[in-house]
Formats: sequence, structure tokens, C-alpha cells
Amino acid sequence: MDKKIIAEIRGLREKSKVAYIGSVNKSGAPQIKAMLVFEDEDKRPIKTHYFSTNYSSKRVKQFIANPKACVYYVNDKDYAGALFTGNIEVCTDRETKAMLWRDGCEIYYPDGVDDDDYCVYKFTAETVNYYHGLSNRTFSIDEI
Amino acid sequence: MDKKIIAEIRGLREKSKVAYIGSVNKSGAPQIKAMLVFEDEDKRPIKTHYFSTNYSSKRVKQFIANPKACVYYVNDKDYAGALFTGNIEVCTDRETKAMLWRDGCEIYYPDGVDDDDYCVYKFTAETVNYYHGLSNRTFSIDEI
Repeated sequence: MDKKIIAEIRGLREKSKVAYIGSVNKSGAPQIKAMLVFEDEDKRPIKTHYFSTNYSSKRVKQFIANPKACVYYVNDKDYAGALFTGNIEVCTDRETKAMLWRDGCEIYYPDGVDDDDYCVYKFTAETVNYYHGLSNRTFSIDEI
Repeated sequence: MDKKIIAEIRGLREKSKVAYIGSVNKSGAPQIKAMLVFEDEDKRPIKTHYFSTNYSSKRVKQFIANPKACVYYVNDKDYAGALFTGNIEVCTDRETKAMLWRDGCEIYYPDGVDDDDYCVYKFTAETVNYYHGLSNRTFSIDEI
């Protein structure tokens, strides 16, 4: 049973085009933003999730002040969702930035990988909650 | 310009079939859950948003402990989203429960409106942030 659930969680993580990122603002309120998943399909680690974003954004300030985060992948049609909970580190080092860089990103970041406004969220999961229909389970990330 | 943005925010609120609800758990981590929007289309107030849920759910306990919440409606294709921030009250009074009751809910709540496991989130918004393409604006809810 667990094997099937774990395969479903990995499937959602590997195939989703969009993730919903949760943060907590300075007033203590939760905030959500949809973000495109740029990592290579089928090669996405389950514990570490990367997202590219603007360093000047409000959410970067939120994560620098409070790294607590969640990343949610969902299949609305199938009533299934995987909610990863952990922390986000805002990375500005060249190696991490180059790893997620894709052709076409120049539209948003004209100075390329070294553009000062380009940075990367490195999300590290501690747990994942998965529901599908009436089933609802929470795993430590090292279990899956 | 504001009129057009406000019309877009109201459009997203009135037409979305799914909303993403943010909460903060007892460890201070943000959490996200997709929920179906059962309110009548085109008749949805902008300040108060209702969602039906199970009283026995984890999230009900979270909102009773910490009412801070957000509700996010998004159009991924159009790269537009409206993030409402405010508070959620967990309602168990018959009037609120009856208001959101729809034919078919008996599948989930066999005892009908009075089912002890059926309750309603009453979300009251304070602000709304709206982005569409490169435009990004935050309004007090009474402005829109």
C-alpha cells in the first residue's frame, strides 16, 4: 500500500507543471503563489525542489526573514495532492543559479545567469502529506 | 486602470471552481489545500468567502488555534492570480451551514445540514494582492 502511495507522490512531483508555494509574511499570515516548475521532468529529487524567481520580489524578503515554507502539487481532477513542508533558502550563488537556467530566461533576466535580479529558491522538505480520495497520509521525507 | 484590475479580481473570484486555502500550523509553517468553491457563481461577495469542510480535519484545528488565512484564486494559463489575506472563522451554526448546503452533500455528510462533521469556513478578507503579467497591486478589501 505504501509503495503505491509513494509512487503517486513521486509521480505528482515529477510531472507537475505548476507548484503552489506557501510562505508566512511578517504579520504571521500565510501567503500562496503559483510558480512554474522548471526542473527536468522525471529527474526531480523528492527532498530538494528548486524554483527560479526575482530577487526583488516580496516573497524573497519573506523567506529571508522566515524560511518556513511549503510546496504543494495537486491534481484537481483526481482529487489528489502532495503537500511538502520544510524550509526555503534563497540562493544567489552562480552554481545553483546556472543549474536551473534555461534558454529563454533572458526575457526576464537580460544579464543572464549573473543577473542580480535572478535567484533560486532551494526548498528542502521535511515531511510530505498526501491525500487521494479519502486516503490521507503523512510521511517523513526520508521514508519515501 | 484600477477599474479594469478590480473587474479582473472580481472575475477570478466569481468564476473559479477551485481556491487554494493557506493556514499556519502549530509549528508556524504555512500549509496549502485546494478546495472546491460551492458558492453560486456570479453572486460571490468579494470580502466574505465560504467553504464547506469536515469538522474532524486537521485544518479546522489549525484555524481554531490560529485564524490567520489566505485564499488564492489563480488562472495559470493567463499568469494572473488574486491572493486574499484575512481570517477564517470555523462556523458550526445551522444558518451558515444551511446557506452553503447543496444537493449531493449527503454523500459526505449523511446526517445532512446537521451532521456534526459538516462545518463551514467563513473567510473575511482584509487585503487582496493581484498580479497579471508584470502588473502587481495590493488593495485594501474596502477599495474594491
